[in-house]
Amino acid sequence: MSNRAPVFVLVKPQLGENIGKAARAMLNFGFSEMRIVDPRDGWPNPSAGPTAAGADIVLEKAEVFATTAEAVADCSHIYATTVRKRGMTKEVLAPAAAAQDMQASNGKCAILFGPERSGLEVMDVELARKIITVPINQEFGSLNLAQAVILVAYELSKMDERNVQPTLEKQPSQPAPQIELDRLYAHMEAALEKTGYFYPPDRAAATKITLRNMLTKPGWTEEEVKTWRGVLSSFENPHPK
Amino acid sequence: MSNRAPVFVLVKPQLGENIGKAARAMLNFGFSEMRIVDPRDGWPNPSAGPTAAGADIVLEKAEVFATTAEAVADCSHIYATTVRKRGMTKEVLAPAAAAQDMQASNGKCAILFGPERSGLEVMDVELARKIITVPINQEFGSLNLAQAVILVAYELSKMDERNVQPTLEKQPSQPAPQIELDRLYAHMEAALEKTGYFYPPDRAAATKITLRNMLTKPGWTEEEVKTWRGVLSSFENPHPK
Repeated sequence: MSNRAPVFVLVKPQLGENIGKAARAMLNFGFSEMRIVDPRDGWPNPSAGPTAAGADIVLEKAEVFATTAEAVADCSHIYATTVRKRGMTKEVLAPAAAAQDMQASNGKCAILFGPERSGLEVMDVELARKIITVPINQEFGSLNLAQAVILVAYELSKMDERNVQPTLEKQPSQPAPQIELDRLYAHMEAALEKTGYFYPPDRAAATKITLRNMLTKPGWTEEEVKTWRGVLSSFENPHPK
Repeated sequence: MSNRAPVFVLVKPQLGENIGKAARAMLNFGFSEMRIVDPRDGWPNPSAGPTAAGADIVLEKAEVFATTAEAVADCSHIYATTVRKRGMTKEVLAPAAAAQDMQASNGKCAILFGPERSGLEVMDVELARKIITVPINQEFGSLNLAQAVILVAYELSKMDERNVQPTLEKQPSQPAPQIELDRLYAHMEAALEKTGYFYPPDRAAATKITLRNMLTKPGWTEEEVKTWRGVLSSFENPHPK
């Protein structure tokens, strides 16, 4: 998403700590372009660094603007995040839908996040083409700035990942081929024949089906099947130390 | 999702503030069942309240356990959240896939979250059937406890929303509660101690981890676990006919 990575715009943030947390949340999902509108305590803010937890690059590159309009002047698609309903006539999207929308859009996108306590003002929301609302517990809604940022960043990164899948391409090792399982089962049955497990004989057939089902269910890897074979051998030929 | 809402298990959390933030993150998406394993600073912790930002009900209802095994003893599906790869043979799911998986599963689910700095230990991951990994920026991964909680809670709440239609009428049988697997594993280990399987001693620890991982992977039912116990008993006390 690098060439179409959206800008995260913090409008009138109050605490430097929260700016740092937002930077950390962004960089966790590969986003680094932050713009700050009229920060209450000025900029740079020494409280931001520690909570950024290493995402200093985001803070260093952050640009400061006097107004929201200036901050998004070069952007083609503006999204405003808000929790409250204000008789919106604009389209309201959940974060996942917003991410899809941004992915499909042509031109630079900006996402506005309001001040900690009050959220975005009507004037800021007016600038936006669309609204992003995280659907939260109606009886408790208490999403802070960094949480709103991380949820949006997370959804955006999922869009991106759909093409690449960097982390998750590594799935667990492949299950052993069926023939290995057949051999494991044969080994187990033979070992259990010797212990008298299949007595009485009239129940043996059903028991064998159960055992085979249990062994085929897990999708064990070849290594795991080998381990089981070792376990069986150890029961067959104990060598107590 | 109320009747199938998962339990959020914080394993050895360090700071009360982070427990409070996790509670807030959970309740934002309608989840309230928190369990805490061996919290570093004891429980209740006066630092948790302020950061919970009103989610006190979650903290008040939180249960404390000495070990992870005890905390999940009544759960049928255990998921471990982890960022690091450890040569997993278990399925690794992104949060969205994990949420789908939980939604489709029959029986109580638990999600394990590790301590702030170190993440879950190998022993905790062993307990889990599946792994949840949030795909984050490889060059910066710095997801804190509350952020991991909120992303998982958020994905779970999306499932709930989407899930207007009733769940599948025929679910596969429910996996045995974790405590049954613990007993099966203890039985197996004891039986193998007698056969000399864990010789030489310097490899025993690694072998035990492998075995436990193999036993937690399949999601066996109570019946299947009973069958395994019978198999073990038969090896321990053979009665050849």
